[in-house]
Amino acid sequence: MTPLLAAALGDVGEEMDRQFDRLLPVPDDARASLYQAMRHASIGGGKRLRPLLVFATGRLFGVDRRCMARAALAIEAIHVYSLIHDDLPAMDDDDMRRGKPTVHKAFDEATAILAGDCLHDLAFDVLAHEDTHADPFVRVELIADLARAAGPAGMGGGQMMDLKAEETTFDLPTVTRLQAMKTGALISASVEAGAILGRVPVEGRTGLRGYARDIGLAFQIADDLLDVEGDEEAAGKKLRKDGEAGKETFLSLLGIDRAREQARLLVDQAIAHLHAHGPEADLLRDIARYVLERDR
Amino acid sequence: MTPLLAAALGDVGEEMDRQFDRLLPVPDDARASLYQAMRHASIGGGKRLRPLLVFATGRLFGVDRRCMARAALAIEAIHVYSLIHDDLPAMDDDDMRRGKPTVHKAFDEATAILAGDCLHDLAFDVLAHEDTHADPFVRVELIADLARAAGPAGMGGGQMMDLKAEETTFDLPTVTRLQAMKTGALISASVEAGAILGRVPVEGRTGLRGYARDIGLAFQIADDLLDVEGDEEAAGKKLRKDGEAGKETFLSLLGIDRAREQARLLVDQAIAHLHAHGPEADLLRDIARYVLERDR
Repeated sequence: MTPLLAAALGDVGEEMDRQFDRLLPVPDDARASLYQAMRHASIGGGKRLRPLLVFATGRLFGVDRRCMARAALAIEAIHVYSLIHDDLPAMDDDDMRRGKPTVHKAFDEATAILAGDCLHDLAFDVLAHEDTHADPFVRVELIADLARAAGPAGMGGGQMMDLKAEETTFDLPTVTRLQAMKTGALISASVEAGAILGRVPVEGRTGLRGYARDIGLAFQIADDLLDVEGDEEAAGKKLRKDGEAGKETFLSLLGIDRAREQARLLVDQAIAHLHAHGPEADLLRDIARYVLERDR
Repeated sequence: MTPLLAAALGDVGEEMDRQFDRLLPVPDDARASLYQAMRHASIGGGKRLRPLLVFATGRLFGVDRRCMARAALAIEAIHVYSLIHDDLPAMDDDDMRRGKPTVHKAFDEATAILAGDCLHDLAFDVLAHEDTHADPFVRVELIADLARAAGPAGMGGGQMMDLKAEETTFDLPTVTRLQAMKTGALISASVEAGAILGRVPVEGRTGLRGYARDIGLAFQIADDLLDVEGDEEAAGKKLRKDGEAGKETFLSLLGIDRAREQARLLVDQAIAHLHAHGPEADLLRDIARYVLERDR
């Protein structure tokens, strides 16, 4: 990891912890455990990759740091909500996440469902507020893009396909589409949010969108590799689940060597998409390489 | 029920069914059951009280019908998502809703969680779109209000308190606050949406807010009465649950007679809040009376 990336990851991690802490004071009433559950899931831990992408993209266009922090928080809130719900017994049934018990283990299932739902609302609440950007056109564009990325045409639809993957045999194009929805959509929304805040016209976003699409897929292949080769303690969650569930993944379809080669190609391609940008895009380049190197 | 209200309920019901049908075409891929579950919960059945409140309020201010239909759909999508999640085994564990099997019964729990999540996104997706209103200030105000009403300071927080009601003994002010959050917040957001679309300045909304607060509470007392006195077939869901769970409700705290009297007072008070409006507010007045008369 480069010093530039290490510093940025540290900064963004602290910023997100601080923001979630500020937005989620525990009330002195029967909702206390709801807020504690939201805090448990959102504060401390996590790579904060999506927030980092908002910052790394926004800085290309001189976006105000407070605006980026709010958009980043909203996207991370959606990501965290999706982890809480995906971990539920009826879904992936996971006990550990980010090195801590999952929310339904630390609290209970009902609280986990509600904590996810409330983080889901928090995301749109934060984006709609004028502190996120003075121009309401920018705010509605952020909201529209995030709602689409999170919904049935994006992350939610991808998770549905993933649940069906245990009973169906998907081919490579279908697994690629599933992952582009399940993980890729929110990664793309993070890069897009930086561009939206920077008022980049749609026709000027082609390179950034290509970058986001490529690192999204590389990220998922790296996740598949981690699932097979990774260390559970470093990952902070249970591994080796896809094989046990009989799911088709990039690895099962391509084999380890070709999958790793494919991920490397995607990272190179992602970096090539940034050719129009100078050294100010080095953080985005570092992120692309990190996607493959990470151990969690 | 007055002919005015009967016609309006019929119109709004058809409009909501048509809109959900148009927005949720079943895709020919592994997400099919997700969309089917969203359709199962959102099309056909339901009183459509919240959409009706958007229309009944918006017409006071000459709001375009298409704008009202989209805001109404978004609020109903939030309501439907909350019913899906509240019915889950980990929450209220209900088998029937609106005379049909609940989503986790007709499909499965994972699909029900995801269908709720995706309807949640659909709401904000619809509101953010320019078809909802040409002015982005109006759209972000709708979004901010709905996100707050649905989140931990509103519906989500109220549901958390309701879950705790089985293990704690709440007093009347706490039950009132719980219900104002759990049911009242979304009813208020429906009236507020009509006012926002009508560009009513905040200082001009006092009467409407009082109306919404009062019918929200009256609605909940009527719900408690239905739970004790109602017919399960007409209600389309299991009744007599609060007593079995040992929850404090308006009824357990006030007794049937005083609760009914209180609800009548609230309806009168709600109607009194509309004094500044002429006959064009008759539909809102009819809704206030209907809240007590309904059998489901």
